[in-house]
Amino acid sequence: MAAAVELFATRGYHATTTRDIATAAGMSPAALYVHFPAKSAVLFAISRHGHERTLKLVQTTVAKHPDPVDAMRTLVEQFVAWHAKRHVIARVVQHELTALAPEDFEVVRELRRTTENLVRDLITHGVEAGVFTVPDVRTAARAVLSLGIDVARWYSPTSRPAPEVLGKQYAELVLSMLGYTS
Amino acid sequence: MAAAVELFATRGYHATTTRDIATAAGMSPAALYVHFPAKSAVLFAISRHGHERTLKLVQTTVAKHPDPVDAMRTLVEQFVAWHAKRHVIARVVQHELTALAPEDFEVVRELRRTTENLVRDLITHGVEAGVFTVPDVRTAARAVLSLGIDVARWYSPTSRPAPEVLGKQYAELVLSMLGYTS
Repeated sequence: MAAAVELFATRGYHATTTRDIATAAGMSPAALYVHFPAKSAVLFAISRHGHERTLKLVQTTVAKHPDPVDAMRTLVEQFVAWHAKRHVIARVVQHELTALAPEDFEVVRELRRTTENLVRDLITHGVEAGVFTVPDVRTAARAVLSLGIDVARWYSPTSRPAPEVLGKQYAELVLSMLGYTS
Repeated sequence: MAAAVELFATRGYHATTTRDIATAAGMSPAALYVHFPAKSAVLFAISRHGHERTLKLVQTTVAKHPDPVDAMRTLVEQFVAWHAKRHVIARVVQHELTALAPEDFEVVRELRRTTENLVRDLITHGVEAGVFTVPDVRTAARAVLSLGIDVARWYSPTSRPAPEVLGKQYAELVLSMLGYTS
């Protein structure tokens, strides 16, 4: 999977062959085939892994922080820092969604839907608690996730600030965006 | 250029050949060669066009609206609506930057830098006028542009709300993010 991420990120998914992946991973094409019967199966494994990780982050954070402000701050800090640190894999996960097989895409779409619904619920919770004010919960949740995901597009090893600092700055911007005033 | 955008968007830049582009445009490879001596020259033309358009939007908006709140609202409304409406071309422009020839990339990078500096200046202007409060101007400018650009990744013909509505909602979210309270 690591070899495939590198190849997909540098050459693009479509220009990478299963033979390229096998060679980069130090395997024979036949050995690769045992684990991944098609190139899109490798992409699916990478994509599902990334999406499950995000869903778990959101679930864990919400469960751990009953206060919606604390939960949102922690969520954005970690989500943003991860997309900065792991921008190569995050870019592949986000930009090659259309290359997934239809049934695989459905699995990923369901993970994205569940994640987005949790973020919506968190914002709604904050609105009900009187700490957040937003024009539209759906669009606000979209914007929160979008800000984090897009970090992977523009962040590079020479970018500053450091991932954790960026996470903290973005958390403050997001809280402000959601109408929170400390 | 339109034919190339379609091909780059569906197959990816690396898997598209100049012959594919010529065929889709109803030209001979030789005729295409007269205008674009390499595939990367087609990508550069598309990318430069997109980036010049954005720079012009920011310049025009700032010149037209002396009030930083009005300027930022108009800028985000139009920037977001464009990325929603023209998500196919915007996606190619944003996601294939690394495929540009080094000297072409420098031209695009300069356009991006100029655009980002104008957005930073606008935020600084708002901070000085006492209408914006941000933890870090550089990160705030990055977040404003990032929110708009990322619309092209997730927006599809079936997405809602409509581009103009999304633009207005995002403009309110951005003003709030910048600490503006009406």
